[in-house]
Amino acid sequence: MSRQDQPIGVFDSGIGGLTVVRALRKLLPEESIVYLGDTARVPYGNKSHATIQRYALQAGTILGRYRPKLMVIACNTASAHGLGALQAAAPCPVIGVIEPGAEAASRVKGPVGVIGTLATVQSGAYEDAIRRRNPQALIHSLPCPLLVGFAEEGWLDDPITDAVCRRYLNQIPFEVRTIVLGCTHYPTLLNSLNRTRPDTTWLDSGELAAKAVEDLLRGSLGFRTASARGDLKILLTDAGTRLQEVGERFLGEPLDSVELVEL
Amino acid sequence: MSRQDQPIGVFDSGIGGLTVVRALRKLLPEESIVYLGDTARVPYGNKSHATIQRYALQAGTILGRYRPKLMVIACNTASAHGLGALQAAAPCPVIGVIEPGAEAASRVKGPVGVIGTLATVQSGAYEDAIRRRNPQALIHSLPCPLLVGFAEEGWLDDPITDAVCRRYLNQIPFEVRTIVLGCTHYPTLLNSLNRTRPDTTWLDSGELAAKAVEDLLRGSLGFRTASARGDLKILLTDAGTRLQEVGERFLGEPLDSVELVEL
Repeated sequence: MSRQDQPIGVFDSGIGGLTVVRALRKLLPEESIVYLGDTARVPYGNKSHATIQRYALQAGTILGRYRPKLMVIACNTASAHGLGALQAAAPCPVIGVIEPGAEAASRVKGPVGVIGTLATVQSGAYEDAIRRRNPQALIHSLPCPLLVGFAEEGWLDDPITDAVCRRYLNQIPFEVRTIVLGCTHYPTLLNSLNRTRPDTTWLDSGELAAKAVEDLLRGSLGFRTASARGDLKILLTDAGTRLQEVGERFLGEPLDSVELVEL
Repeated sequence: MSRQDQPIGVFDSGIGGLTVVRALRKLLPEESIVYLGDTARVPYGNKSHATIQRYALQAGTILGRYRPKLMVIACNTASAHGLGALQAAAPCPVIGVIEPGAEAASRVKGPVGVIGTLATVQSGAYEDAIRRRNPQALIHSLPCPLLVGFAEEGWLDDPITDAVCRRYLNQIPFEVRTIVLGCTHYPTLLNSLNRTRPDTTWLDSGELAAKAVEDLLRGSLGFRTASARGDLKILLTDAGTRLQEVGERFLGEPLDSVELVEL
């Protein structure tokens, strides 16, 4: 098989990255995707740099078996802590979800907000990536640890979810009109976020990463030559409860073939 | 060192079990405790039976190095899925937090509620353990996946936490007047739980487990002979962010010596 027909490998700490797969399949329906979710050790959001880095390298080894033309770390926390190490070790290019989000954020006029897990925000990865492009950028970062739970519980159009979003987002000054969704779970909470802070532009790091993938394929990596819809293979390290229900909500299509792997 | 002076080994998926350590140190201040929190893979609440069982056995191996006279699985989810395997493998007696809670619940007149993580509730471990003692027991079990996040976020006297508790607990019929706190995080939410459902008796599985430990020591295992306050050694598989703050809130004393171990 020539390289352009090899799959795209996608790695996530759990199933949140399925929102990135959803964006990829919308933008690039012909591409084959192998998704690895580390559901046995999810979430990464409260874990340390060294541990997340180790987990990312292990995931890269598994995905490497499928000879991907490109790997995507579809998790902000894993991107913040594991991207450099995986780029150094992987036999193919690797992109994360932070650089594409930071690229868009760096072009914003005025201050920009970033919300994410504790580990993502404390890593400073968004600040670093935005300031590399725009040293004058004014950035307000805020960890929102409870939002992942609400996305997974599926309380999507719900006054309690609105109240939690409001509690967090009111800590970001009102002049901030653009906020990066620095966690792949957050796009499922967009209704609540919009009610809490209308007239805000939300930068979806997963959607932006899908566009970055398209750019890379258009460059040297190449698009898949077949015109049929690409396969989606899902590997998980643990088949926990409610996976089907929550996963399908994130992916936006049925979760057909799930395979268990050990890390 | 004679056996009665050996430490008690306590295993938890993370730091929730520190509420059990707190109860143990209140009831049995002279005992030495070695606590192992698997913070690199926390939480277990959404993971599968096989995975949790494997993790419990790995934790038992680490704790075994300290030659404990007794091991306590201070996590309902790990007790529900890992107790039998660890009892079969460990070189000392092992107790979980479910049997003591179920024992108290089985003596309740009228229906009883059980709240916990998804994995704990779906295991049916409380139902089984209560019905073994009282086959006629009427049990209402309810998973409350978001409560762990609220306990860790520390929104303890908060209308949002109250609203979440109300949303969950209203699903339990009002004639239920006794509810088992089937997760070691929940005792920190007692104020909210009480506001939501006044006149309820809450059975704290951790506190009841501490009493069960006392009974076992009074029997063949023996109390520690020294009269000084026992040592508390804390082993974690990952030193994540906010550990100090959240851990101290759960433990009720400073977290002094934390050591990292690999599983």
